[in-house]
Amino acid sequence: MPETKVKKTEDFNEWYNEIVELADLCDKRYPIKGMNVWRPYGWKLMTYVDGLIREEMEKTNHQEVYFPLLIPESFFKKEEEHIQGFGKEVYWITHAGLNTLEERWLLRPTSETAMYPIFSLWIRSHTDLPLKIFQIVNTFRYETKQTRAFIRVREIHFFEAHTCHVDFEDAERQIQEDKEIAERLFKRLCLPFIFNRRPEWDKFAGAYYTISIDVLMPSGRTLQMGSIHQYRDNFAKPYEITYEAEDGKHKHCYQTTYGMSERILGALIGVHGDNKGLILPPEVAPNQVVITPIIFKGKETLVNDACEKLCEQLKKEHLRTFVDMREITPGNKYYEWELKGVPLRVEIGPKDLEKKQIVIVRRDTGEKLFIPVESAIPTIRQTLEKISQHLATQAKKLLDSNIHRVHTLDEGKEKQGIIEFPWCRTKECALEIENLLEGNTLGEPIEKDDCNATCPVCGKPAQTWMRFAKSY
Amino acid sequence: MPETKVKKTEDFNEWYNEIVELADLCDKRYPIKGMNVWRPYGWKLMTYVDGLIREEMEKTNHQEVYFPLLIPESFFKKEEEHIQGFGKEVYWITHAGLNTLEERWLLRPTSETAMYPIFSLWIRSHTDLPLKIFQIVNTFRYETKQTRAFIRVREIHFFEAHTCHVDFEDAERQIQEDKEIAERLFKRLCLPFIFNRRPEWDKFAGAYYTISIDVLMPSGRTLQMGSIHQYRDNFAKPYEITYEAEDGKHKHCYQTTYGMSERILGALIGVHGDNKGLILPPEVAPNQVVITPIIFKGKETLVNDACEKLCEQLKKEHLRTFVDMREITPGNKYYEWELKGVPLRVEIGPKDLEKKQIVIVRRDTGEKLFIPVESAIPTIRQTLEKISQHLATQAKKLLDSNIHRVHTLDEGKEKQGIIEFPWCRTKECALEIENLLEGNTLGEPIEKDDCNATCPVCGKPAQTWMRFAKSY
Repeated sequence: MPETKVKKTEDFNEWYNEIVELADLCDKRYPIKGMNVWRPYGWKLMTYVDGLIREEMEKTNHQEVYFPLLIPESFFKKEEEHIQGFGKEVYWITHAGLNTLEERWLLRPTSETAMYPIFSLWIRSHTDLPLKIFQIVNTFRYETKQTRAFIRVREIHFFEAHTCHVDFEDAERQIQEDKEIAERLFKRLCLPFIFNRRPEWDKFAGAYYTISIDVLMPSGRTLQMGSIHQYRDNFAKPYEITYEAEDGKHKHCYQTTYGMSERILGALIGVHGDNKGLILPPEVAPNQVVITPIIFKGKETLVNDACEKLCEQLKKEHLRTFVDMREITPGNKYYEWELKGVPLRVEIGPKDLEKKQIVIVRRDTGEKLFIPVESAIPTIRQTLEKISQHLATQAKKLLDSNIHRVHTLDEGKEKQGIIEFPWCRTKECALEIENLLEGNTLGEPIEKDDCNATCPVCGKPAQTWMRFAKSY
Repeated sequence: MPETKVKKTEDFNEWYNEIVELADLCDKRYPIKGMNVWRPYGWKLMTYVDGLIREEMEKTNHQEVYFPLLIPESFFKKEEEHIQGFGKEVYWITHAGLNTLEERWLLRPTSETAMYPIFSLWIRSHTDLPLKIFQIVNTFRYETKQTRAFIRVREIHFFEAHTCHVDFEDAERQIQEDKEIAERLFKRLCLPFIFNRRPEWDKFAGAYYTISIDVLMPSGRTLQMGSIHQYRDNFAKPYEITYEAEDGKHKHCYQTTYGMSERILGALIGVHGDNKGLILPPEVAPNQVVITPIIFKGKETLVNDACEKLCEQLKKEHLRTFVDMREITPGNKYYEWELKGVPLRVEIGPKDLEKKQIVIVRRDTGEKLFIPVESAIPTIRQTLEKISQHLATQAKKLLDSNIHRVHTLDEGKEKQGIIEFPWCRTKECALEIENLLEGNTLGEPIEKDDCNATCPVCGKPAQTWMRFAKSY
C-alpha cells in the first residue's frame, strides 16, 4: 500500500509539512511567508470545526458579531501592557489609495482594542451584563519564528469570545464555563489536552491570569490550542467600560476572553494521522463515509445502484457520504481517501451483493469487516463511534505516556514530552530550567495537586508542580 | 403604535440610516469611517443570506476556498487595466512590527490578483477544467464618496466566485449559470432585479464585459447588488493561466467571476421595510416566528406551557421560532419585533386557549388572524409562504412602476427611477444624458429588445435601449 514519502514515525515534522499539501488542505506557494491558501478540503475541515465551536457558543448564550479588521493606533495604545506585548508583531497601514493616513491603522492581532471602546458604549447598566459575544475572523501577527501550516502562520483563522461581568466572581464563573466548553469541544475532536496556568511573565498581554489549552504532538512538543484569560478590570479601566450597579454606583466591568485558532487543525493532523496520511475524527471529517463500487463487466448497473442506494440512506441519517464513481482503480481511490483521512470506507462488489453483504474498512485500524446489507446503517454508525473512541484512546495514551513527574534536573534531562518539576514559583528558577533543557515553562496545573518536594534549582520548598516542555 | 422617528415614506435615506441602528443590525460609532460593527442581529441576518449563497454554490459544484487577504504589489500590478481601476482605492501595508517591508502589500479589494498566480499552478491540463471556486471574505476599498451602512462601506463583506474554462463558449455557459443562480437567489430574498450589460467605460477593470444585478430602492435610486464578469483571457495572459488541451497544445484559460456583497442587506432593508421598521423575508429572517404569551394572573403556567409547546413543534418543523418571555408589556414586545422585522407574530392568551385558538399577526400586512390550535403548524407555514409572495409582489410593483421607456430627454427629465432611452451606443451621448439628468448609465438590457428609434442626443438611429438611473 503506498504511503507518504516521509514516514510520520520517522520524521514527524517533515511528515507534517508534506501531508498538509498532499491531503489538499493548503497550498504553501503563496508568495507571502506564513500566509497560505486554504484549499477546498482544508477549508471544509475548518468549517466543521468552526461549526462545533458555534454550537458551543449557542449553547452558552454567546452571540456572534463582527468587528472591523482595522484598529486606529490611538485605540490600540490605551492599554500599556497590551501594546508592549503586541506592538512588535502588528502590521501597519499607512496609505489609502494615493493618500497618507493621518493616523496609522493596524490589522487586528486580536480584537480587545477594537471592541472595548464600543463595549463602553453598549454597557450602561447591570442589566446589560453579562455581555457574551464572539467572532470567528482573520487576525494577523508578524511572526518572526519559522512558519508552519496551521501552527505558526501570519494570517490566522481565529476564534475569540469576549465577555463582561459585574464582578470578579462572575468572571470566574465564565472561566469555569469556558473550561467546560473546552472539555466538550476537544472530546468531540478526540483530542485530550491539559490546562496550564501560564506563568506571570508569559501570560497574555494585559491579563490578570491566563490558562492555556495544550495538546501533545507525537514529536514530543506541545501545541497550544487556545487560551482562556481572566482580565479582571485591567482593560475596563483604560477603556472605561463601566456600568451602573443596582445601588446606583458606577463600577468597572470584569472581563474574560477565550481564544482558539486554526492550530486545532494542526493538532488533528499531527495527533491522529499515520504513515498513510490523515485520520479525521468522524465529527469533523468533511466526508465521513466513502463508498467505492467494485465493478466487474456486466455488473456495473447493479453495483452502482447498490452504492447509490446505500449513499442515499446514509445521507438521510445525516452521515456525510459520497460514492466515488471515478474511472480509476479502486486501489487508487483507497490511496487517496486514506491520505485524506476519511474515517470509513465501504466497498460494494457483485459478489458481496450476492451474499447480501458489504465490506467496511476502518481508516484508523485498517480493520476490514463483512457486514449484512440489512444492518449496514446501524453498524456504520456504531463503527464511526468506535473510531472516535479509538482515536481518543490512542491520543490519551500518547499524552499519558509522555507526562513525566520528576524531582531533579538530571531526571528531567532524560525525559521527552511534558516534564513536571517541583517549583518554588520564582521566574529565575523556571528560566534556569528552560535554559538547561531548552524548552518552555507551560505553567502550573490548574487542579489542586500538592507538591511536597523541593525546587530542583534553588533547593527551597516547592509551592507547586511546574510543567515544562518543548513547544511549537 | 410607535414608529421610527423618521418615516420611510417621507425621507427614505434618513429612515434607512436610522433603522440600521435601531434594529440592531450595526453600530456606526466605530472610529474609522465606513467600517461599522456588525451587531448580533445584523450578523445573523447576513449569515442566513450567506447560507443561501452557499447552497447555490454547492448545487452548481463551486468549492469554497480562502485566499490570503494581503497581496504583494508585484502580483497586483500584472494586469494593467485592473491596477488602473483599483489603484486609487486600495489600502497599503508598509510596516510589520518595527520593520519597513521590502515590498508593499495591499488589502484585497477583490481577489483576482491573489488567486490567479496560484491558479496558474493548479491548472495543468484540460482535465483540471472547469475550475469553479468561491470565497466569502472581508475586502477593502477606500471609498471617497459618502459612506452608508451596508451600501457604501470600506470593509466589505464580500462573496466572489472565480471560474476557469477551456474556451470562451464554456465561460459563456458559466455566465448563463450565474444568471440562473441570481434568479433563484433573489427570488428567495423576494427582491426583483434587472440585469444590465454595463457600458464599456464602466465595466469591471480588466473584464471583457460586465453584467450588473440592479435593484430599485424606494428612493428611486438603483442599488447594484452584484455583478457577473466575462474576462475572456484578459487575466489568463498576464497571469499565465494555461492548460494542455486534448490535442497537446497549450492554451490560455477563459475566466469569469461573480461578485456580491453585504449590499444585499441594504436592499432587503430598503425595499421591504416600512415606517415601523424592517420586514424580513422568511427565508433569511433570523427569527421567523415570535410567540408572545398574553398573561393574566393565575394563568401564567397554562399560557407559558402552551407557548413553549407550540414553539417546540415549530422548531421541529425547522421554523426559527422563540418565545418572548421577558417581563415587559406585550406592546413593547410587538414594537421591538416589528422594528426587527420578524415576519410572523403569534399571541397566545388564556381566552384563546379556552377557544382552542391562537392569534397570528403578519408583519407585512398587519393582518390579524384567529386560527385553530390544531392546524397551527400548516397555517403558519402557509402564512410565511404568503408573506414571501406578498413581499415579492410589492417589490415587483415598485420596480415595474418605476421603469419608464421614453424617447426624448424632456420626457426623461420628468421621470423618476429607471429611464430607458434609445441609444446610439456612443459614450459621448450617454455622458451627455448623465450630465443633463444627473445620474448614471446602468447599461443595456441583456435580453433581446429591438429599438426602432433615434438617439435623443445625436439623432442617429439607436442600436439599443440604454438604462439610466440615479444610483447609490
